[in-house]
Amino acid sequence: MEIRENAFVVCEAGVCRGVFDAVPERYGALEVIDCENLLVMPGMVDLHTHAPQYAFCGTGMDYELLTWLIRVTFPEELKYADAEYAAAAYDRFAQMMARSATTRAVIFGTRHAEATLMLMDRMEKSGLVSYVGKVNMDRCDPKALAEPSAAEAAADTRRFIEESLRREYRHTKPIVTPRFVPSCSDQLMAALGELRRTYGLPVQSHLSENPDEVELVRELAPWSAFYGDVYDHYGLFGGDCNTVMAHCVHSTPQEVQRLRDNGVWVAHCPSSNMNLSSGIAPIRRYMEQGLRVGLATDVAAGTSPSMFRATTDAIQLSKLYQRCMDGNARALTFPESFYLATKGGGSFFGRVGSFEEGYAFDAVVLDDSAGAPGEAMPVQERLQRAFYWELDRNGIVMKFADGERIF
Amino acid sequence: MEIRENAFVVCEAGVCRGVFDAVPERYGALEVIDCENLLVMPGMVDLHTHAPQYAFCGTGMDYELLTWLIRVTFPEELKYADAEYAAAAYDRFAQMMARSATTRAVIFGTRHAEATLMLMDRMEKSGLVSYVGKVNMDRCDPKALAEPSAAEAAADTRRFIEESLRREYRHTKPIVTPRFVPSCSDQLMAALGELRRTYGLPVQSHLSENPDEVELVRELAPWSAFYGDVYDHYGLFGGDCNTVMAHCVHSTPQEVQRLRDNGVWVAHCPSSNMNLSSGIAPIRRYMEQGLRVGLATDVAAGTSPSMFRATTDAIQLSKLYQRCMDGNARALTFPESFYLATKGGGSFFGRVGSFEEGYAFDAVVLDDSAGAPGEAMPVQERLQRAFYWELDRNGIVMKFADGERIF
Repeated sequence: MEIRENAFVVCEAGVCRGVFDAVPERYGALEVIDCENLLVMPGMVDLHTHAPQYAFCGTGMDYELLTWLIRVTFPEELKYADAEYAAAAYDRFAQMMARSATTRAVIFGTRHAEATLMLMDRMEKSGLVSYVGKVNMDRCDPKALAEPSAAEAAADTRRFIEESLRREYRHTKPIVTPRFVPSCSDQLMAALGELRRTYGLPVQSHLSENPDEVELVRELAPWSAFYGDVYDHYGLFGGDCNTVMAHCVHSTPQEVQRLRDNGVWVAHCPSSNMNLSSGIAPIRRYMEQGLRVGLATDVAAGTSPSMFRATTDAIQLSKLYQRCMDGNARALTFPESFYLATKGGGSFFGRVGSFEEGYAFDAVVLDDSAGAPGEAMPVQERLQRAFYWELDRNGIVMKFADGERIF
Repeated sequence: MEIRENAFVVCEAGVCRGVFDAVPERYGALEVIDCENLLVMPGMVDLHTHAPQYAFCGTGMDYELLTWLIRVTFPEELKYADAEYAAAAYDRFAQMMARSATTRAVIFGTRHAEATLMLMDRMEKSGLVSYVGKVNMDRCDPKALAEPSAAEAAADTRRFIEESLRREYRHTKPIVTPRFVPSCSDQLMAALGELRRTYGLPVQSHLSENPDEVELVRELAPWSAFYGDVYDHYGLFGGDCNTVMAHCVHSTPQEVQRLRDNGVWVAHCPSSNMNLSSGIAPIRRYMEQGLRVGLATDVAAGTSPSMFRATTDAIQLSKLYQRCMDGNARALTFPESFYLATKGGGSFFGRVGSFEEGYAFDAVVLDDSAGAPGEAMPVQERLQRAFYWELDRNGIVMKFADGERIF
């Protein structure tokens, strides 16, 4: 991580041209925005979050995954059948995202196509760049939340994709979103694989988050070599389509190998993994083995929508992992976790997450005065404090995504 | 944890008289303070925090304990030899504490008596109830921070205690504060045991935080049965004096037994234990075995001064402990962690930390509107969100300690 003081980051025609101590002559005609005493950094990339769950974020933290889904999550997601409810809830979610340090996100909606399109409208207006998925789930309780059949689910999803493309959003794209293997019949998974190929879409889902969940998949798909093998069987696991899998806490060595071979992105969700007692993902190992890794808030199993918080959570969990599980797995440094939160996850979108020449220009400007840093505090300490104290909460004073100014 | 809606908590002559659905006639003459739509709760008790370290809180998170002390902490504490520096830094610390949800605290100063008295002045003005200790350390690097000899350290400490008592603070008391065994020669420990008995003071220190530290104590005191045995040998480990020991992450079964037998309070410091890669203290086990346990921020190995944060950190760590270390150690529930943060630590001060009849009246009133709870959110969910979102940051709108209104 490079820190440059009193320097200029240049954005020309939406693309980053690099960081300079003085503005090069060829950029002399560009507008200069004064950020004196502010911290300018690449925008953060949230690789996995559930927009409908923001409504109960910070609550319901009394269960492990499968029970939490039944008791807390599914009852809330049911409400999104009501367009008025969805509109208000997604207004709040999009407003929160707009103010945040997050410039790009990969987002779960609910199984309701209409509500998910409303979410896409609002994400487009927010100025962020995002993938938004209508969730597929044809086998779950309560039945009211389940899609009635694989065929209807596939048709509904096709219509959703078509409509989202028809709207010609500039910054908001659909993504194929099987909730997870337990929720999706083989027929539905096959249909989704078809849709994925037909429309050339990326994929998002959950993988190996919780031991009971992994066991359940083993029972449901005894033919599979491992959990992720089920997704791969249906063409929903990397290869020629960008795929992000959340969690990967309990991935077997074979699964890790396939994640790497197929170039699947791992979305590390530290807050969620603590809150649902899932465990600690061996992120250092994944990085050493060349897997693609990014960070995520996983609202609302994750209790905070802040990517600053996710960054420090990841560091803290990696320290516990080294102390308690594997002394050879070096804890993440601050620059490394910052990398996961920016460039690591940003690679899912392309050249995103850095001020290097040729990268998309995503940036947030932070006023960290609420942290009362004092005159003498070096910038790298101001940055650490800003993250540990979550000064992104009310501190983002300017924001740019894909070369356009949001505020 | 009981939640009472639209009820009245009564404070009469500084003492809590209980919670009622309607004001009993005998209290009819008391002033009624309207807290409509606000959350009224017992003030939090921070059992272990380092006032001089607030200056770098949220930074310096790159080391384990012993290296962190040398590279980050001792250089900062040296600065408190300068009265002007101490005054400004302790102004900021006391102001932060005043605004916080913390009503009682057990606080480390530095080895500098003059600065520590300045800290006591400011804590007295803050309205909180606290113990403040001049730190003892006659063997450490850098030498400039070490007290010059055990005899001078003891004399200096005696003068400090005498002066703090002469000032007749109502809410701020001295506490005997050996930094930890590695910092204190046998002669100094013996002298501190004397001072403790002479003045009838409580004791605070650190215990079994980090494996290298535990090993160091074993080398320095090979005669001891375990780390805490050293403190006990000098009369600084419970029994007839209230003692709080921070961390207890790596306590042996014998040490745990002695903690319990001597009635020593364990100050659980979850943030610190993550940040310095110390590990996870087996709090459920301690509670099951009848140890006295409270919570602490341990600023600045702990990156947050918020007791709301400490409360949720403790829950999260206990979930990881159950998942990764001991499946039989049930994770803490929210009410249990809230208990540790209030009544658990409060017992160190007496009948503190609850709205039960006869308890000291410590209370904070929280405006949680920043959490945008929505009309239908039940109070227990508003409370969870307030804690997970650290709404104590700017949300404490009224505060009472020991029956007196602070603001």
